[in-house]
Amino acid sequence: MIERAGPACVAIKPQLACFERLGAPGWAALADVCTAAREAGLLVVADGKRGDVPVTAAAYAQALVGETPTPWGPVAGLGADAFTTNPLLGADALEPLVDAAGAAGAGVFALVRTSNPGAADVQDLPAPEQPLHERLAGLVDELSDRLLGEGGLSGMGAVVGATAPEHIARLRSLMPRSIFLIPGVGAQGGRPELLGAAFAAGVASALVPVSRGIAAAEDPAAAAEEMRARVWAASTE
Amino acid sequence: MIERAGPACVAIKPQLACFERLGAPGWAALADVCTAAREAGLLVVADGKRGDVPVTAAAYAQALVGETPTPWGPVAGLGADAFTTNPLLGADALEPLVDAAGAAGAGVFALVRTSNPGAADVQDLPAPEQPLHERLAGLVDELSDRLLGEGGLSGMGAVVGATAPEHIARLRSLMPRSIFLIPGVGAQGGRPELLGAAFAAGVASALVPVSRGIAAAEDPAAAAEEMRARVWAASTE
Repeated sequence: MIERAGPACVAIKPQLACFERLGAPGWAALADVCTAAREAGLLVVADGKRGDVPVTAAAYAQALVGETPTPWGPVAGLGADAFTTNPLLGADALEPLVDAAGAAGAGVFALVRTSNPGAADVQDLPAPEQPLHERLAGLVDELSDRLLGEGGLSGMGAVVGATAPEHIARLRSLMPRSIFLIPGVGAQGGRPELLGAAFAAGVASALVPVSRGIAAAEDPAAAAEEMRARVWAASTE
Repeated sequence: MIERAGPACVAIKPQLACFERLGAPGWAALADVCTAAREAGLLVVADGKRGDVPVTAAAYAQALVGETPTPWGPVAGLGADAFTTNPLLGADALEPLVDAAGAAGAGVFALVRTSNPGAADVQDLPAPEQPLHERLAGLVDELSDRLLGEGGLSGMGAVVGATAPEHIARLRSLMPRSIFLIPGVGAQGGRPELLGAAFAAGVASALVPVSRGIAAAEDPAAAAEEMRARVWAASTE
């Protein structure tokens, strides 16, 4: 898939679940896939949606972008260029992940508004002033300071699903410095043509992962190229 | 630790982060630890706080309590007796995990109110009628039907941190059929003496994991036994 569809992509987003269900050999395969992607010039966004209390979040950070000291020497993690994280546990649980990403020169994508239908159950709950996903956007924007680069773009990004495009413009205004990771295009029904607001004027842009839409296509190279063109058109309209 | 502290415990709660940061050998060690715990008569609560869109949640379920078909035959997952999950993605994302647990005779603990200070940032947000953690408790109780056993106890449980004991009585009334998994005792400052409401009259009870408080003690067996006695006293007062 990296060989065939890679030329139309900027990154791979391996879904950790699909590797860890195979146990230790699955984790070895995951590391191999990340290496192959890097050798092909692709970024690696490790999609594990990890999140835990601070001491454990620090251990996840070691797995994703750091290394772990052992009596036999340090063990390298996945070396991801970025990873997804679940922000339900709040700012103190995100901080170890964000700071580890900063130290590694990596980026973070926190779930703000996911692409599944059930996202509305929790993430769209009204609060006195704003729905929960807007509060999560506020958390992301606050933490953006920690990963701010030259030019004002932050390594602190947000997952904003393509399946509820009506939220994108508002979330872009709340997180102007954050790259959006926008899943849900393809098998889940999201359409690149509705994502223009994610690419609105400003420093930030968006990554649009397409997994089954490419992997399950008869010609993955052609499917990736078609999707690239559609995203490009939406981003420049 | 299983040999020494195990006799005072009913379960181990391996923290997946601490194994996966060691890569494939870490996952092999995790499987070995789970096997050793089972051989010692202990339950295994796999603490990974996984959660993702439905198709990916099904893959996590394979890793935790199921098996994965491959051309070379099925690959067994961890075989956990229960696991933790993050409910931010809503009901449709929990359902594949809950249903897989039901098929495997296993249980689920959804995060409702975690033990870290930052939990308040998101989980205690006021909504028009109730704070978010109460809405999450509602989700848990709705899904309890799917894992209901004889006698009215459900395999659908909830993570309710020991560090905010003022929420426990209310959450117990909202989730009367759910076992509570109550982290935060020991290193995080929670005290068993304040957890009595989790064991209030009714079918459900609670598990109180103590990790660093036992693992870092000079005498883990004595530390586990002391904690067992304190929890027992709180549960019967």
